[in-house]
Amino acid sequence: MLSWVDGQPASQLPLSDRGLAYGDGLFETLRVSGGRIPLLTLHLQRLAAACQRLAIGLDLAQVEEELRTFAALLGQGVAKLIITRGDGLRGYAPPAESRPRRILLASALPEWPDQHAEQGVRLFPCQTRLAEQPLLAGLKHLNRLEQVLARAEWQDPVYAEGLLCDTSGRIIEGVFSNLLLVKDGVLLLPDLQRCGVAGVMRAALLQVAGEQGIESRIGDLSVDDLLQADEVLLCNSLYGVWPVCGYLQRHWPVGPLTRKLQAIAHILLEG
Amino acid sequence: MLSWVDGQPASQLPLSDRGLAYGDGLFETLRVSGGRIPLLTLHLQRLAAACQRLAIGLDLAQVEEELRTFAALLGQGVAKLIITRGDGLRGYAPPAESRPRRILLASALPEWPDQHAEQGVRLFPCQTRLAEQPLLAGLKHLNRLEQVLARAEWQDPVYAEGLLCDTSGRIIEGVFSNLLLVKDGVLLLPDLQRCGVAGVMRAALLQVAGEQGIESRIGDLSVDDLLQADEVLLCNSLYGVWPVCGYLQRHWPVGPLTRKLQAIAHILLEG
Repeated sequence: MLSWVDGQPASQLPLSDRGLAYGDGLFETLRVSGGRIPLLTLHLQRLAAACQRLAIGLDLAQVEEELRTFAALLGQGVAKLIITRGDGLRGYAPPAESRPRRILLASALPEWPDQHAEQGVRLFPCQTRLAEQPLLAGLKHLNRLEQVLARAEWQDPVYAEGLLCDTSGRIIEGVFSNLLLVKDGVLLLPDLQRCGVAGVMRAALLQVAGEQGIESRIGDLSVDDLLQADEVLLCNSLYGVWPVCGYLQRHWPVGPLTRKLQAIAHILLEG
Repeated sequence: MLSWVDGQPASQLPLSDRGLAYGDGLFETLRVSGGRIPLLTLHLQRLAAACQRLAIGLDLAQVEEELRTFAALLGQGVAKLIITRGDGLRGYAPPAESRPRRILLASALPEWPDQHAEQGVRLFPCQTRLAEQPLLAGLKHLNRLEQVLARAEWQDPVYAEGLLCDTSGRIIEGVFSNLLLVKDGVLLLPDLQRCGVAGVMRAALLQVAGEQGIESRIGDLSVDDLLQADEVLLCNSLYGVWPVCGYLQRHWPVGPLTRKLQAIAHILLEG
């Protein structure tokens, strides 16, 4: 499969990379469709903000150019971009003169059953809780052991995703998706100031919802809020929107706002 | 510098490794002295326990044999062992048939000033707090962005280490050391059930202290406990024991129990 390191075809990386040593870096998972990357601007904006927070001095214009070339070569599928702080001395201190490393990996778009999008998915109740770390919250960084532990909790394919709460019991997100609730026509989004990944599709839907006069609120949400929601949906920038049809004993029909957001996501991803 | 992957000389690693993708792995930093590894049994015990918690099926006998061979070749210095879950498909789910990867990296022992051990070190007050994640607490795993952020807070060499508290304000450890207090002749150790790395030298000192009739207690400790301590010390399995001589406005002389533990650590490391 197609893979690049610093713009050159490569399948390996130096053992001295701080991405391996400390998870000292970030990633973006980008859908590639017709040789192009939908939502590229939002991906790049998130990456820029994340690099600033971690003080990684990335040349974003170069990354954008590489992504466009890589996507054109790939045509269809998924491009995973990993940015690390680069090589490091032994020790946690970021080297004064670090040169970030850019890794691009191609893969096929996962073949999810159509019914995930059509009838909705059941959420597995993960026991793994997300720790509250405001300094890293929102970032799609390379420290993802919590997600590994959470995803290892179930194998039953009846669950397409799992619900992650934080250590205080607030609902936050899915393992690889953002979570949105609908209550009385208002879109409710978990606050991601303490933990969670601020997804690009979440940001795009929030923006379009605003433009279309759909009220939305970001705040702390409990499992009770979830159970009392009129509609529940998941989103990410690969599959778009999946309705949630079940969590524990609660079942939901696919609601109208979910279908509307799903159509918006479809347009965002397919153009 | 000497480096191995799965027992063979190598300087690179496949881009598909989950250590890079998710920090899905563990590490050990081992002192090598006269071709041998002091505290090897404790390192291997910690690694075994950590692999069990992360469900990484490592062949520990093979790791031990490789470590011994590597140390004999290296002679003097530091061996860093990184264990990853191995290659992964895209996605967080640990592959059913994952084959852990063993990485060994040699480096020289850092040249710390003698005065660190003799007169003690000042602790930098880190603003970065450790998130509370009981599922990962104690493990020396590859998700180390908190340490990277904390270590980036200071450059002034007057501070040899930094003090890390958790998000609730308890004192936990140094950035690359464990922290111990002495109060009324009793050794006080921060509880590492919520966060922190359970260091091998910490475990060794605790064991020897018990054998020598030195009372020790593990529990929640505050910055006030630190400031009111009679002695404060740091330890790890590379440098042994450093007295702490200052934190904020508080200064400590090097106390008798610190010197005793330092002598024990010296014997443990030098034989």
